[in-house]
Amino acid sequence: MSLLIRNGRIITATDDYTADIFIEDEKISLIGKNLDIGAENIIEAENKLIFPGGIDPHVHFDLPFKHTASSDDFETGTRAALFGGTTCVIDFAVQNKNHSLYSALDEWNIKAYNKSYCDYSFHLNMTDATPDAIKEIKDIILREGIPSFKIFMAYKGTMMMDDRQILAVMDEVKKYGGIVSAHATNGDMIDYLVSKYKSEGKLNPLYHYLSQPEISESEATGRFIDLANLTNVKSYVVHITCEGTLNKIKEAKVRSQEVFAETCIQYLVLDASLYNKGTDSAKWVISPPLREKKDQYALWSAINNGLIQTVATDHCPFLLKDKITEARDFSLIPNGAPGIENRMELLFSEGVKKNRISLNKYVELTSTNAAKIFGLHPHKGTIAVDSDADIVVFDPEEKHTISVKTHHMNCDYSSYEGFEVTGKCKTVIIRGHIAIDDNQLLINKGFGKFIKRKL
Amino acid sequence: MSLLIRNGRIITATDDYTADIFIEDEKISLIGKNLDIGAENIIEAENKLIFPGGIDPHVHFDLPFKHTASSDDFETGTRAALFGGTTCVIDFAVQNKNHSLYSALDEWNIKAYNKSYCDYSFHLNMTDATPDAIKEIKDIILREGIPSFKIFMAYKGTMMMDDRQILAVMDEVKKYGGIVSAHATNGDMIDYLVSKYKSEGKLNPLYHYLSQPEISESEATGRFIDLANLTNVKSYVVHITCEGTLNKIKEAKVRSQEVFAETCIQYLVLDASLYNKGTDSAKWVISPPLREKKDQYALWSAINNGLIQTVATDHCPFLLKDKITEARDFSLIPNGAPGIENRMELLFSEGVKKNRISLNKYVELTSTNAAKIFGLHPHKGTIAVDSDADIVVFDPEEKHTISVKTHHMNCDYSSYEGFEVTGKCKTVIIRGHIAIDDNQLLINKGFGKFIKRKL
Amino acid sequence: MSLLIRNGRIITATDDYTADIFIEDEKISLIGKNLDIGAENIIEAENKLIFPGGIDPHVHFDLPFKHTASSDDFETGTRAALFGGTTCVIDFAVQNKNHSLYSALDEWNIKAYNKSYCDYSFHLNMTDATPDAIKEIKDIILREGIPSFKIFMAYKGTMMMDDRQILAVMDEVKKYGGIVSAHATNGDMIDYLVSKYKSEGKLNPLYHYLSQPEISESEATGRFIDLANLTNVKSYVVHITCEGTLNKIKEAKVRSQEVFAETCIQYLVLDASLYNKGTDSAKWVISPPLREKKDQYALWSAINNGLIQTVATDHCPFLLKDKITEARDFSLIPNGAPGIENRMELLFSEGVKKNRISLNKYVELTSTNAAKIFGLHPHKGTIAVDSDADIVVFDPEEKHTISVKTHHMNCDYSSYEGFEVTGKCKTVIIRGHIAIDDNQLLINKGFGKFIKRKL
Amino acid sequence: MSLLIRNGRIITATDDYTADIFIEDEKISLIGKNLDIGAENIIEAENKLIFPGGIDPHVHFDLPFKHTASSDDFETGTRAALFGGTTCVIDFAVQNKNHSLYSALDEWNIKAYNKSYCDYSFHLNMTDATPDAIKEIKDIILREGIPSFKIFMAYKGTMMMDDRQILAVMDEVKKYGGIVSAHATNGDMIDYLVSKYKSEGKLNPLYHYLSQPEISESEATGRFIDLANLTNVKSYVVHITCEGTLNKIKEAKVRSQEVFAETCIQYLVLDASLYNKGTDSAKWVISPPLREKKDQYALWSAINNGLIQTVATDHCPFLLKDKITEARDFSLIPNGAPGIENRMELLFSEGVKKNRISLNKYVELTSTNAAKIFGLHPHKGTIAVDSDADIVVFDPEEKHTISVKTHHMNCDYSSYEGFEVTGKCKTVIIRGHIAIDDNQLLINKGFGKFIKRKL
Repeated sequence: MSLLIRNGRIITATDDYTADIFIEDEKISLIGKNLDIGAENIIEAENKLIFPGGIDPHVHFDLPFKHTASSDDFETGTRAALFGGTTCVIDFAVQNKNHSLYSALDEWNIKAYNKSYCDYSFHLNMTDATPDAIKEIKDIILREGIPSFKIFMAYKGTMMMDDRQILAVMDEVKKYGGIVSAHATNGDMIDYLVSKYKSEGKLNPLYHYLSQPEISESEATGRFIDLANLTNVKSYVVHITCEGTLNKIKEAKVRSQEVFAETCIQYLVLDASLYNKGTDSAKWVISPPLREKKDQYALWSAINNGLIQTVATDHCPFLLKDKITEARDFSLIPNGAPGIENRMELLFSEGVKKNRISLNKYVELTSTNAAKIFGLHPHKGTIAVDSDADIVVFDPEEKHTISVKTHHMNCDYSSYEGFEVTGKCKTVIIRGHIAIDDNQLLINKGFGKFIKRKL
Repeated sequence: MSLLIRNGRIITATDDYTADIFIEDEKISLIGKNLDIGAENIIEAENKLIFPGGIDPHVHFDLPFKHTASSDDFETGTRAALFGGTTCVIDFAVQNKNHSLYSALDEWNIKAYNKSYCDYSFHLNMTDATPDAIKEIKDIILREGIPSFKIFMAYKGTMMMDDRQILAVMDEVKKYGGIVSAHATNGDMIDYLVSKYKSEGKLNPLYHYLSQPEISESEATGRFIDLANLTNVKSYVVHITCEGTLNKIKEAKVRSQEVFAETCIQYLVLDASLYNKGTDSAKWVISPPLREKKDQYALWSAINNGLIQTVATDHCPFLLKDKITEARDFSLIPNGAPGIENRMELLFSEGVKKNRISLNKYVELTSTNAAKIFGLHPHKGTIAVDSDADIVVFDPEEKHTISVKTHHMNCDYSSYEGFEVTGKCKTVIIRGHIAIDDNQLLINKGFGKFIKRKL
Repeated sequence: MSLLIRNGRIITATDDYTADIFIEDEKISLIGKNLDIGAENIIEAENKLIFPGGIDPHVHFDLPFKHTASSDDFETGTRAALFGGTTCVIDFAVQNKNHSLYSALDEWNIKAYNKSYCDYSFHLNMTDATPDAIKEIKDIILREGIPSFKIFMAYKGTMMMDDRQILAVMDEVKKYGGIVSAHATNGDMIDYLVSKYKSEGKLNPLYHYLSQPEISESEATGRFIDLANLTNVKSYVVHITCEGTLNKIKEAKVRSQEVFAETCIQYLVLDASLYNKGTDSAKWVISPPLREKKDQYALWSAINNGLIQTVATDHCPFLLKDKITEARDFSLIPNGAPGIENRMELLFSEGVKKNRISLNKYVELTSTNAAKIFGLHPHKGTIAVDSDADIVVFDPEEKHTISVKTHHMNCDYSSYEGFEVTGKCKTVIIRGHIAIDDNQLLINKGFGKFIKRKL
Repeated sequence: MSLLIRNGRIITATDDYTADIFIEDEKISLIGKNLDIGAENIIEAENKLIFPGGIDPHVHFDLPFKHTASSDDFETGTRAALFGGTTCVIDFAVQNKNHSLYSALDEWNIKAYNKSYCDYSFHLNMTDATPDAIKEIKDIILREGIPSFKIFMAYKGTMMMDDRQILAVMDEVKKYGGIVSAHATNGDMIDYLVSKYKSEGKLNPLYHYLSQPEISESEATGRFIDLANLTNVKSYVVHITCEGTLNKIKEAKVRSQEVFAETCIQYLVLDASLYNKGTDSAKWVISPPLREKKDQYALWSAINNGLIQTVATDHCPFLLKDKITEARDFSLIPNGAPGIENRMELLFSEGVKKNRISLNKYVELTSTNAAKIFGLHPHKGTIAVDSDADIVVFDPEEKHTISVKTHHMNCDYSSYEGFEVTGKCKTVIIRGHIAIDDNQLLINKGFGKFIKRKL
């Protein structure tokens, strides 16, 4: 199938020019002025921006949580992703304690296979650094094309690893050229505060926020980076939210350590005042919690100073029944919220339109950097000859309002209900196929492929 | 004239892919795989890197100094630039005290017109912030396409401006969207030390170095950035050399101030041990002087941390007779050294080949960032459809040795004599014309054009 | 004359104990438990604190300003000082342009001689670094016992020195072991802003504040410290007000540079909201201006971190007719305000009573550190055998209200009108003589002596 | 017994004056000029310095280690302390796992009772934060007069506590106004490196050093301080050795957190080059290990900047048979070295005599600050009326050489063998009794008392 996109304003992390793009066999084969060439499909993109398809490196579909699970599975989640301009996601295959890494991978392959609309990969989320698990790392990286591993420094008793285990993981991942990422909050601090608040009868969702203060994140981030420094492994910190944490990233940069940092769209546009809404605040019970206005300012600044490379979502929706029911005790509320469909448009509206970031930076944050850090580049993450034709045709002026009534995520509330947004994904192309056009889904379930990665 | 470059590995600040480039009417009109298209000239670029033409934002051709002048004029200097892969330079039109800005511009236009081989522009180097000169700023920016102004904080009694004058310049430049750059060293500190050393009979070139210590640069840089902060103008610090100065840049970034920084190739690869060579040390009498190994380390680190945007040359050669004759008194030695021809190859060899910087970063430093900061982008600074076809076809493996015997600069010594370099500019294309091919110059004097710029 | 103080709680910068103090020949000769010794006078000090007499290292009595002068002369000013527990002051002998240092010293000697109630010295305030003036520095230090010199970096056209002059002063002061202090605000920045606001018709006292922003102080402080670093001279920054300036002090400490810093009581307890009072705001037109709440917080913190050594007053009162008359144009209002009488009691009430500082720190800030930095120690600044018997018997619980109605300063308003204060100087002793007892003045004009100092 | 010390130059943390001191009933009762008073003993102290007796807040006497113990017990250790001018020590009562705090206290009381020559107290070294142990904290503080608790972040599997346990200790200590100190090195990092080196057959003492790199200390220090911040408890970091750690202390100061820091004399005067002596290097196997020259520089600087409050010894000697026998495997060498006798004289010689610190600072570091931080002040730590008469009469000019042949510690080697020292403790007085005079011990075993402390 061939496709010609005419006269769009093409934006990459570096460039900004107007040209035609010709696509064959899922890839961009030609970029030029006024291409005189036949194509099966033609998209007229005058006055439109042409972005590389979004890459969300942090999502959780179909993630078990006690008796329930995150409400988007690979089918509904990746469909919503496409509506929002994201053409590739990286989920997390979670190792169970005492189980092998391959069992985790198998489980997640089953969840995704033949269900995903967009392309996908997994990070391997280790929770138990047994000698056997450590031995599997080599094959996971070299044979399975999964060079990225995640560990938790919180959730004591379930997923939390101690420093010694983290060092063992890093040591092995380093040997095969992989990268280690962390949920970097101090589980012991949080556990201490949760116990304290509960013993004092302080149970409403506000105490979720108060039990994960800035210092619980900055401490763990600093420690994680120090562990990575000791083992000389590349590292990546997920969902950074605050100034204190950014200071730790800055120190690592000063000593020339290769550390990457991610924030999520919610930390840029929402703040902790949402925890003063009583039971309703349960909607925004996520970890780390939303922070202060001063932290939003620090995050935008860090984006422009090169301290933050990616804006992800940590998409992990739960239905209201699961969130609100448990709101009587903040420690029981499943952690997570929806967002994958909103990321690209919100960041454009709040970032580009409000002059906080340039168009080039927008592309870096939503696509290019994730592709480079996690080994999807040069196939994905840019608009260049020979790259996968993952493309968003974007109207920078169309206004619309975010609402649960119109979103495609399988979640009965929106974190951003009523947000007015300028900028809309009009046509979304994945590997040369038009997936979304004018709010219509045009591809079938299972179109999305697992992508092997290599750093 | 049309030109086809086949199968080169195209490197931009973001991308890295192999394709053909087709050029018509001085511009890139098509990029694609296996282009089946006729062209007057074809370059086979298999196994070659394809870079955007180098942009050197800091050169001084034909600069008067007492009874002499810098030994390269626009003819010899821009020719040497092309041999070294640089296709565009920005020189400085220097206002004389009590003279208008336009008189400076006129003078430099005459120096360059019909003589330049490569494209060029000027920064307006103000030395006297008279009310009349301040009034001219508007036209210089809007009518002449020169949005960048430079001031000196050193050279007391000649070019140095005090803070009040700098503020007046900034205030006006800000109004019309321009940028102010500074030679940021504290002229009073230097004057104090020069007087002191001279009064003690310490006259050899080593004392040039000792009379411009790190703190004389870091102080002035901090002050310049503070002045820019007060007036809210974009700023750019030329030829940064040391750790102390980088700390000032870092502080500005922390407060989200838009400050750009340049270092020069000599500060990355040479060090102050060259000032222990007696009279011969006069060759490296430049301002600021070469620094310590720890500063080189800090500069490479800053490049990767995003504190430094450009690597220029401050090319300002003098003949040995001018340099060595005056070596009996360091304060009389004309300041400056040759380098324009060496920048691109040296940075590749010392940076990319030694794994200090990536290929993408190399392009940023040598071309893209200068183009963006100074308003040459998107015409220059990248390889994209519709850009000027300023291109270097580069052999990453060819080894050669830098020597005065082989260089094309009009200078009877080389700052880098005997340096072994890996990587060579094989073919240099300017606006679609092959300027250099296999060490042969193929264009005529005057080919280079003045480029109007816009931020 | 002998004097016995019984059972007071003696506080020094280090100690805290209860004992009797016996004084003979102006000095402390004995400290002990239950001294069984005859004395001409006995003070029962049970439940009282015994502090070393306050030293205010920054006052301006009888300072000419246009057609007027600061309203306290050495008579009224030092009398008020004693009422407030300050037994020694250091004023500034101001060199006139083109005049000698000795002419300044002569002038100030005349102002003080036979008029002062408390002991005093002068800093030599240089305004013109002529070669002759530089030559006088040696004698001023060695013969006159004045080892401290002050320069201005603001007040362009009158007292401001450029960096080159400052370096010349520092170089010479260093030779004879002196110390250089600075009014460190950037005169050019302030001049730029004053001109700007005036040209825009913004003339009310608020614009005094806005024309001396934090950065105008932090920049000059950083520069002053760098100049001192270059010349390796001890330095002291007067009236520090804000966070940005403290950052500069901190950097100097990190590089082990010997820099001392002073704040004034007004910056700790008043803030910039007082500039929103229209014409009345003229009362607080001082330089630097009052700052923000966040700066007060930073100052208290810096006091405890050892960044700030002294709390002075910069006492320089003007009568309301001088302040308010000129309030129609902020740039004409004489700069300065009263405070010498309030310093000790206010700092006790706001600092010790509010648990911001310890009793030992209180003594450091009000007396000991100034004595050590400026060469009054060990004669003054502590309570120890063989020290001058300059002593304050202080009631830590007595409450009173500050008011122009009750103060002894020759100023028809109080900067702190209505402030409720806990803690009162009950008896003030200078060189063994009871100067103040229960609000009565008991010594004669001229009791105060000029004190030669030595570092 | 009464004692008169005549004409000594008395140095406190603040003062410096010459006077006589009269002592009765173990306390200073009178200080004055030319005291005309009868005394049983008279010491003529002309040309001598009079210091408060040294306080060493970090010693380990009779500390069990596998089948051996530290070679000084309370008898030999405190005797050596007195010879070296230290009149009070704080040892550590170490809780065994699953045992009560009181059992630890009982054990250490037995070790010390009737054996100690100098005064002493204990820190309670918790190793197991059982609910029962936590409950005991109140009584330990309020009834036993032991307000200081220590935890280990290293020695995994034996004494190391995880963050959750540390928080529990802090929370309880805070309630009763105590202070928590830490051996702050990351046990997991060290364990990882020890395992790694051992698996590679790297067993000589050099690898002790390499397995505890700077980052293992700075990380843990930062974390400890963050935990203290969360619980708002006063904290104290023992044996700080390096620049990275000092940066963490500095950050805490910036946020106005009350953190105290100790270094030890060995880190100021010895460096890691001693680990290149093969088997002999076992003598200096201590934890943390000796560091680099740059760290010594940083420590001296930090002392003067107020980041470090105390210079202790961590005295914990082992006989050569214990050290060298195990030198075949660095991980088996008992950690610790002798030093208590050398601290005061070495710090005087290396600090005061080399102009790195003032006399006042010397007293702060060796006595006053420890007394204030740990609740011994005002009884100890100063020279003032009503204080315990713990006094060192010190000859600042006497030269001698440190050697195992002459020291009194029960250790068959000296860490400082051959060091030439200027300055000697001539007479050491404890509670008014002459303990040491001219190298003769004049008091009996058991003279030393347990001192109850209160913050």
